[in-house]
Amino acid sequence: MAKPKLRIIPLGGLSEIGKNMMALEYETDIIIIDAGLMFPEEEMLGVDLVIPDISYLLDKKERIRGIIVTHGHEDHIGAMPYLLPQLNVPVYSTKLTNGLISVKLKEHKALAAADLRIVPPGGKITLGKFRVEFFPVCHSIPDAVGFIINTPVGTIVHSGDFKLDYTPVNGKPTDLSRLAQIGSQGVLLLLSDSTYAELPGYTPSERVVGETFDRIMAEAPGRVIIATFSSLISRVQQVIDAAAKHNRRVCIVGRNMTEIVGMALDLGYLKAPGNILARIEELKGLPHNRIVFVTTGTQGEPTSALVRMANRDHRQLHIIPGDTVAISATPIPGNEAVVARTIDNLFKQGAQVLYSNIAQVHVHGHASQEELKLLLNIVKPKFFLPIHGEYRHLSLHSKLAQSVGIPKDNIFVMEDGDVLELDHDSAKISGRINSSNVYVDGLSVGDIGNVVLRDRQMLSRDGIVVVIIAINRQTGKLVGRPDIVSRGFVDPQGYKEMLDKSRDMVVQVLDRGGARPAEWSFVNTKVRDTLYKFYYEQTKRRPMILPFMVKV
Amino acid sequence: MAKPKLRIIPLGGLSEIGKNMMALEYETDIIIIDAGLMFPEEEMLGVDLVIPDISYLLDKKERIRGIIVTHGHEDHIGAMPYLLPQLNVPVYSTKLTNGLISVKLKEHKALAAADLRIVPPGGKITLGKFRVEFFPVCHSIPDAVGFIINTPVGTIVHSGDFKLDYTPVNGKPTDLSRLAQIGSQGVLLLLSDSTYAELPGYTPSERVVGETFDRIMAEAPGRVIIATFSSLISRVQQVIDAAAKHNRRVCIVGRNMTEIVGMALDLGYLKAPGNILARIEELKGLPHNRIVFVTTGTQGEPTSALVRMANRDHRQLHIIPGDTVAISATPIPGNEAVVARTIDNLFKQGAQVLYSNIAQVHVHGHASQEELKLLLNIVKPKFFLPIHGEYRHLSLHSKLAQSVGIPKDNIFVMEDGDVLELDHDSAKISGRINSSNVYVDGLSVGDIGNVVLRDRQMLSRDGIVVVIIAINRQTGKLVGRPDIVSRGFVDPQGYKEMLDKSRDMVVQVLDRGGARPAEWSFVNTKVRDTLYKFYYEQTKRRPMILPFMVKV
Repeated sequence: MAKPKLRIIPLGGLSEIGKNMMALEYETDIIIIDAGLMFPEEEMLGVDLVIPDISYLLDKKERIRGIIVTHGHEDHIGAMPYLLPQLNVPVYSTKLTNGLISVKLKEHKALAAADLRIVPPGGKITLGKFRVEFFPVCHSIPDAVGFIINTPVGTIVHSGDFKLDYTPVNGKPTDLSRLAQIGSQGVLLLLSDSTYAELPGYTPSERVVGETFDRIMAEAPGRVIIATFSSLISRVQQVIDAAAKHNRRVCIVGRNMTEIVGMALDLGYLKAPGNILARIEELKGLPHNRIVFVTTGTQGEPTSALVRMANRDHRQLHIIPGDTVAISATPIPGNEAVVARTIDNLFKQGAQVLYSNIAQVHVHGHASQEELKLLLNIVKPKFFLPIHGEYRHLSLHSKLAQSVGIPKDNIFVMEDGDVLELDHDSAKISGRINSSNVYVDGLSVGDIGNVVLRDRQMLSRDGIVVVIIAINRQTGKLVGRPDIVSRGFVDPQGYKEMLDKSRDMVVQVLDRGGARPAEWSFVNTKVRDTLYKFYYEQTKRRPMILPFMVKV
Repeated sequence: MAKPKLRIIPLGGLSEIGKNMMALEYETDIIIIDAGLMFPEEEMLGVDLVIPDISYLLDKKERIRGIIVTHGHEDHIGAMPYLLPQLNVPVYSTKLTNGLISVKLKEHKALAAADLRIVPPGGKITLGKFRVEFFPVCHSIPDAVGFIINTPVGTIVHSGDFKLDYTPVNGKPTDLSRLAQIGSQGVLLLLSDSTYAELPGYTPSERVVGETFDRIMAEAPGRVIIATFSSLISRVQQVIDAAAKHNRRVCIVGRNMTEIVGMALDLGYLKAPGNILARIEELKGLPHNRIVFVTTGTQGEPTSALVRMANRDHRQLHIIPGDTVAISATPIPGNEAVVARTIDNLFKQGAQVLYSNIAQVHVHGHASQEELKLLLNIVKPKFFLPIHGEYRHLSLHSKLAQSVGIPKDNIFVMEDGDVLELDHDSAKISGRINSSNVYVDGLSVGDIGNVVLRDRQMLSRDGIVVVIIAINRQTGKLVGRPDIVSRGFVDPQGYKEMLDKSRDMVVQVLDRGGARPAEWSFVNTKVRDTLYKFYYEQTKRRPMILPFMVKV
C-alpha cells in the first residue's frame, strides 16, 4: 500500500497577487492558511472584489481543522466574511490579526457565529496531524507571523509576508535564530513570499519613513495630510510620533481608519500620548502648522476622504494652499492612472504633494532579493515553493533559489489549483483541482461568471443596439417598421441616417416574399449578422446587437 | 493703442501626457508646434485614440503659416492624418521626422494632399513674423529638434522632447553651446519638457542599453527577441550592432516595424551591415543562438507580435524554452497590468524575460531634474512655461525653476486651453479657449462625446436591462406581459425569479385601473425608477434600464 502523502494546494495568491489562501491536506486532516481577497483587475468590469474558489473544500468541511492566519491585511483576511460562514471552522491568529478579523466580520454581521482564537507569536497549536508554530516575522503591520509546521512527512516553513527589518517600528523583527535552528534540524519544504522578488538588494527599514515624516512635520508651513492604508498601523504610529515631536495634533479621518485605529489603541498596538488625537471639531482655532490629518485614499478610491478632498467634494475638509499632502503608499498595479489624477488634483488645489516617486514616504513590507536569499540560506529547505506573486515573481524567485544552490528540480513554480504532493524525500506536482476567481459584485458572491463579464466588456467597448421587431402572432409577418435604439454606440443625432437605414435593412432581412416566416433563431442570427457587418463598415465599431421579437 | 502681444496657447500636452500641440499667435500670424495623439485612458471606454481639439483654429486657417514639428514620435505627429486635412498648411520638419510623417499620412491616404517640407537640424525658416531655428536636441529618436523662435516681442526657446546624452547612439547631442549663446543674448520665454521632472539626477545615456543588449546576445543560449517601439530607431540600431558583434541575424517582425525600419534604412538613419537583416523564411536551419527578432508589443497591445507569441497565438512564431525576451520600454501609465500579464505568459512558455524592473533594457528619452536645471541655467529665460507633462510634473518643474532663481511670478503652470500673453517685458495668463479631448473611435473623429462615454461606463459596470412594453395603439392598454432581457447584469439562470418578479412590477406600474393611460415619458421614468430601486435592493447593482414601448 502506498504511504500517505502530504498535499499542498494553493487556492489563491499564486496566479495573481492577493487573495492568498492555501490548503494543506494529510490523510483526513486539512488546515488552511489565510483567506484573502483581491481587488478586481481592469477587465473585471463592475466587480467589487475577488475571492478564492473554495469549491474543492466544500465537501470536505468536516476534515478542516482550522484556518491559521499570517497577518491582518486584506489580501490575507479579506475573504473571511464570505468564506468563514461556508466553512464554519476555528480561526487561529495573533491578537492584532484577530482584532482586524473581528472588525471585518462585524461589518458583515458574521462575528457572532465565528470561532476566533488567539495564538501569541511564538505559540504552538496542534491541528489534527499538524503541529503549527507561529513564528514572528516583520511586515508592515504588527503581530505578523510565519508558520513552522510539523507534519508526518517533515517540517514545512511558511514565511508569511515578511521582510528583515532589524529596527521595526513596532512588532518584532523576523525571528531568524529560530529559523536557523529549524533549518539545521532539516526542513522538507519552504514556502516563501515572492512579492518583491524583482527588487535587488535589501528593503529599507520602516524607520526611514519615520525620518521623512519628521522632516515633513518640521518644515510644512501649514497642515499636513498623510494618506495611508488603514491597516498600516505602524505607519500611523510613526505619524503620531512625529506629530508629538513637533507639537501637532492628529485627526483620524474616515470611518474605517477610525475604527481600526480605535481597535489598535484598545489592544495596545498603537500608542498615542496625552490628548494628541483630536476630533475634527477640536481643531477649530488651532494654527494650521499644529494640525495633521491621517486618511485613506492612497489608491485613488473615489469615496475616500483624500480623493474627495482632491475633488473639492469633501463635506468637512478642503485643501488650502500651504497644505502638505504625503501619500504614504505605492499604487497597486492597475491603480497608477487614478492615483496620478488624485495627485494632479491636489497640486491644482495648491497643496504640496509628496509621493513615492519624489520622496521616501513609503517603504514596502516585503523582502527584496538579498533577504529572500538569506531566508533560503538559513532555512536550507530540500524543496522550495515560491508563493505570493504572479508568475514572473515566482519564476524570478525560483532563479534566486537556484543561485543559492537549490536544484531546479526541487523547485516548484505553480499556479493556483496545482497540487504538490510530498513525502519525506520526494515532491512532485501530481495534478490540478478546479480553481478560478470568485467575483463579489454587490450582494452576490459567485454569480458573476465569464458570460456576464464578457457582455460587460463588449458593452464597454462599443455599446449596444437593441432591435425591436413586432410580429403578428397569427401570420408571423412583420408589424410596422422595426425599432432601433442604441446606447454607448454612436451619437444618435449624428448617426440618425445610418440608424434609420439599418431599420430598412432589418425589414429586408425579414421579408421573405410571402414565404413562410422563418424560425426566430434564424431571423435573430440573420439580423445580427447583417447589422454587425453594416455598422462595422460604417463605423469600424462592433456594438452588441440584441434583436428582440414581440408577438402581438 | 495697446501694443500687440504674443499669445501662446497649448492645445494639448499640458493636461495629459501626449497629444502635444501648441499655437503661437502674433497679430495675423499663427504657427503651430507639433500635432500628436494620446492613447486613451482607462475610463475612455472603446476609444482608439485621443487627439487635440483644434476648434479654436478652424476659423483662422488662412492665418496659420505652418506646423513645425520637433520629432517623429506618435505623441508629436500622430494627429497629423486627422488634423492636417482640416488645416491644409505646410509642415516643416527634419528628414527622418518628415519620413515618419509621410509613412503615417500614406497609411491614411492623406499623403498626396500634404505639403511637407524638410528643414535640416540647425536650419532656419521664416513664417510670417516668426523666425524659427531648428536646433538639434538628443532624444530617443534621431533628428529631434527644439526651436529658437524670434518673435517681435523677444526670443522664445522650445526644448522639444530632450535629454543631455553626450554619447547618443545616432543623432546629435543637444546643442548646448548654441543655447548658451542665445541665453546670453536674452531669452524672453523658455518652454521646457517636464515629462521626467519627478526624477532626480541625470538620465543615463542610451549607450547603457547597448551594453545590456551586448551581454544578452553573448549569453543567451537560444533566440533573442527584443520588443520596442517601432519609432525607437536608435534602439533598433543598437540591436543590429549587438547582433552583428555576436554573429546573429536580425529579423524584423510586424508590418509597422518593417515599414519604419525600411524607411530609416532608405534615409540613412539606420545602418545594417551586409546581409544581417533576414526575412523569417531565411532563418530556417539557422542555429537558435544566431537569431534575433525585433518586434513591437511593449505595451501589451493585443494584436502585436509579442502578445500573440505570449499567448501562443502567432501564425509563424512560437516561444520555445531557451528563448530570451527583452522588453525594451517601460509601460505607459495605465498599461502596467496588461504588460505584466504579457511577461507572465512569456515566462509560462519557458522564456527568460528581461524587463525594466529587473534589467537595464531601457532608458528613457527625457531630461531628469539636473538636466532640466542645467537648461534653465544656460537659457536664463525671463519667463518660464513648463510643458509636456501632467499637472504634477509641471508643478515640480516649476519648483525646480524656482530653485535656480526664476521668480515664482514669472513661471506659468498652465493647462490646455489657457492663453499666455506676452510682450517684451511682461507675461500673464489672459484667458482660456475651449479645449477638450477629441476621441477617435473606429472611423469617426469627434462624434464620441460625454454621453456615449457615460453610457459605456454605466454599461461596463452593471450591464443593461431592456424592458419591452407592448401597448395597444387604440386603447393605450398593455398587451401581454412586458418582456425583460438583460446583458452583463446578472446570470439570467440564477436570477430567473427576480427578473420574472420585475416583469410583474412593470405591469403594476402600468396598471391605472381603467384610468386614461399615462404619457410615455411618465411611464418610462416610473418603470425606470421602480426597477432601479428593486434591482438595487436585490443585488446592490445599478444596471442601465432601458424601457421601450411598442405600439401595436
